[in-house]
Amino acid sequence: MSINTGIPKGTRDFSPAEMMRRNYIFDTIKDIFRLYAYQPLETPSMENLSTLMGKYGEEGDRLIFKILNSGDFLAGLDCSKLSEQSPSKISTKICEKALRYDLTVPFARYIVQHKNEITFPFRRYQIQPVWRADRPQKGRYREFYQCDVDVIGTHSLLCEMELMRIIDDVFGKLNVPVQIHLNNRKILTGIADAIGHSEKFLDITTAIDKLEKIGEEKVTEELLSKGLTAAAIEKLWKIVRIDGSNDDKLEALKVPLSSSDTGLLGISELQTVFSYLNDCGLRSEVSFDISLARGLNYYTGAIFEVKAKEVNFGSICGGGRYDDLTGIFGLNDVSGVGVSFGADRIYDVLNELNRFPAETSAGARILFANFGGAEERYSLKMLDYVRKQDIRAEMYPEAAKMKKQFAYADNKNIPFVAMIGSEEMANHSISLKNMLTGDQRTIKVEEVIKLVS
Amino acid sequence: MSINTGIPKGTRDFSPAEMMRRNYIFDTIKDIFRLYAYQPLETPSMENLSTLMGKYGEEGDRLIFKILNSGDFLAGLDCSKLSEQSPSKISTKICEKALRYDLTVPFARYIVQHKNEITFPFRRYQIQPVWRADRPQKGRYREFYQCDVDVIGTHSLLCEMELMRIIDDVFGKLNVPVQIHLNNRKILTGIADAIGHSEKFLDITTAIDKLEKIGEEKVTEELLSKGLTAAAIEKLWKIVRIDGSNDDKLEALKVPLSSSDTGLLGISELQTVFSYLNDCGLRSEVSFDISLARGLNYYTGAIFEVKAKEVNFGSICGGGRYDDLTGIFGLNDVSGVGVSFGADRIYDVLNELNRFPAETSAGARILFANFGGAEERYSLKMLDYVRKQDIRAEMYPEAAKMKKQFAYADNKNIPFVAMIGSEEMANHSISLKNMLTGDQRTIKVEEVIKLVS
Repeated sequence: MSINTGIPKGTRDFSPAEMMRRNYIFDTIKDIFRLYAYQPLETPSMENLSTLMGKYGEEGDRLIFKILNSGDFLAGLDCSKLSEQSPSKISTKICEKALRYDLTVPFARYIVQHKNEITFPFRRYQIQPVWRADRPQKGRYREFYQCDVDVIGTHSLLCEMELMRIIDDVFGKLNVPVQIHLNNRKILTGIADAIGHSEKFLDITTAIDKLEKIGEEKVTEELLSKGLTAAAIEKLWKIVRIDGSNDDKLEALKVPLSSSDTGLLGISELQTVFSYLNDCGLRSEVSFDISLARGLNYYTGAIFEVKAKEVNFGSICGGGRYDDLTGIFGLNDVSGVGVSFGADRIYDVLNELNRFPAETSAGARILFANFGGAEERYSLKMLDYVRKQDIRAEMYPEAAKMKKQFAYADNKNIPFVAMIGSEEMANHSISLKNMLTGDQRTIKVEEVIKLVS
Repeated sequence: MSINTGIPKGTRDFSPAEMMRRNYIFDTIKDIFRLYAYQPLETPSMENLSTLMGKYGEEGDRLIFKILNSGDFLAGLDCSKLSEQSPSKISTKICEKALRYDLTVPFARYIVQHKNEITFPFRRYQIQPVWRADRPQKGRYREFYQCDVDVIGTHSLLCEMELMRIIDDVFGKLNVPVQIHLNNRKILTGIADAIGHSEKFLDITTAIDKLEKIGEEKVTEELLSKGLTAAAIEKLWKIVRIDGSNDDKLEALKVPLSSSDTGLLGISELQTVFSYLNDCGLRSEVSFDISLARGLNYYTGAIFEVKAKEVNFGSICGGGRYDDLTGIFGLNDVSGVGVSFGADRIYDVLNELNRFPAETSAGARILFANFGGAEERYSLKMLDYVRKQDIRAEMYPEAAKMKKQFAYADNKNIPFVAMIGSEEMANHSISLKNMLTGDQRTIKVEEVIKLVS
């Protein structure tokens, strides 16, 4: 009998070895979020389908995993007319719920629903999986974790600075040098204004967002096809190509954007952020990147994107300021800013760079061999004693051959094996084998504690 | 415009205050799992529908949340004939995936799929949400967490003892006295044998399982309806009513079960477990409960159920030994034993008993007031310094009125507020207000660290 024991494509099992490495990443991120006094929030895996639909564009709507209604889901539907309707239309009739697609929309929904209980500015972090029916490919999964940190309910640019410090601390702790790319959507508005195409702001940002991927020529083609004049596009490239230090670039931008109040405000916001940053000495390189646009249209101020310097794995963290995220749920004028760490990409980076600490194992430090009988009983007491000293320990559950018990310790990378035979019992001692060095000696249990812990 | 910002019934948002209490439970459980050298495992939220269907009975099949296929999910279906088919039949055609219903079946699937990479005996824990389309009611949710710990690949009764120690340690740490009910499915087999109804074993266990809920009379009715004779049922009650200490009851049971090898084996297994337990002095009361049956039919040996002693909230932890769980996926003869902690029920118990520690808050210990200008810059440096001492701290992001900043600290239960004005700057000191006592004094930053940490 052949039974399929596979899992859905784009999903993954995480073995103990992988879990321990993943937990190392999550714990590092969480510790820093907490140090900065952000508090945890969790929302349900399922949201009402109506909460999610229309929030991620047409493509996003298609990628939302919908959950079939329980019971007689076809009741009230005219089945004979089903084939006349589009699948997406039918799906909204037989599915009331869906799996969350990101943590941002549920966060906005939460704020609006609980606005009277929340103390603003609200500082929260949220580390949960999200689901997308994307075509699975290298580094892209259908179930993956986002680690979001946001402060909402203030326009203060201190928050932008603080989030960049958090980014700096997280990647510093993970020992991954990064470059933080920084821009401001108001500057992009300013550019659209400056080249005389304010009305094409979204087309321009969407195109510029692809610059790194497809190059200047293709972006130019796209902009032409959207109805921008060649002269305007030439003007655009002139602005985007402005070079120099971050401060120099911001100063230089003031000339072409002089007629755009929004553009000048964007420049001034970034200058404030940089002035805060100058005080705090980040390890990470921060680069003001005029062509950074980010795809999501709810951003209205600073935008961030983080890349590892030693490998080109794309964005491993990103975010920005949004002035009206909760507006989609009827609560206006609540400004916030946040970033999201991509745990799965960070895992791949650490793996590639071989930067996981040697001791991410949370397995046993010591295995008590099992000789059965009175030795077993005595060893159980020693096992207890060792655990009471807060040392992770286990006993082989059967009086198997020593070869098998040693192989078990070896396979599980348990560094020490304790053996207690009748002689050790009589002397109140333990024969301890160091599995790495092969060294074996007979010592008191107190010494074992010292060696093992 | 009215926008629905609700969430699906039976699901919950967890606010920061609730999250911190939940994390207290999860962290306590996880710490003990790790101390006992169990290692973490995670499986995807989605499994293939075929992996889950037929594993939880007919009722279970109905309660599985199914995920609608992406794209044209009706392709290849004859829509005109849909109304002739049952909803459950149609659902298997338009849904390939489903949300996991428990952690046990995915665990069995994982073992079979990865059997060649696993070192047996395999000790794993798994803490993840599960989803059931149950009718929502008090204490029952459609999304809830299970905390499973299992060892698989050995028949050793040391494992039963160890799991009971884990139960004892977890509830000891949580400060919730419990009673552990213990039985063995082989004893139930023995009883079915002894009353001459070996063939009705499942009917008997199903009925006995309800004893506490519906009483002896109703169970008798059910057994009669299943075809047991009145004499057999009378014999059954005589056995179930055997009284005395755990040891006495086990001894006494040997008489009626003398003709059942399986029954005697069950008695002997429990005697071994009790003899191990005698050595280790559990805090919890352990009660051999002949009528404990547990609903799940994959149990074949010891079964456990844990109840809080001070409140009657039903089972807060349970489990047992299974000799052939992986058999459903084609891998036979792999015995294991495990228990599952119900985090949501444990939350309710701790809440009811008011046993959450006062300090489950992971919020800021200190808020730096914001006076803007040079004071803000200076305070930012002090904030940095405090965080470097690993103290959770934040600064109010705007130079708002002090009343507002104090109210913020108050609402968020931040115990200290630091104020640095021009005078404090000149003296390199900080005015520190204790929000609990109202006490305020001007001290050096090093003293602040001592007071706050």
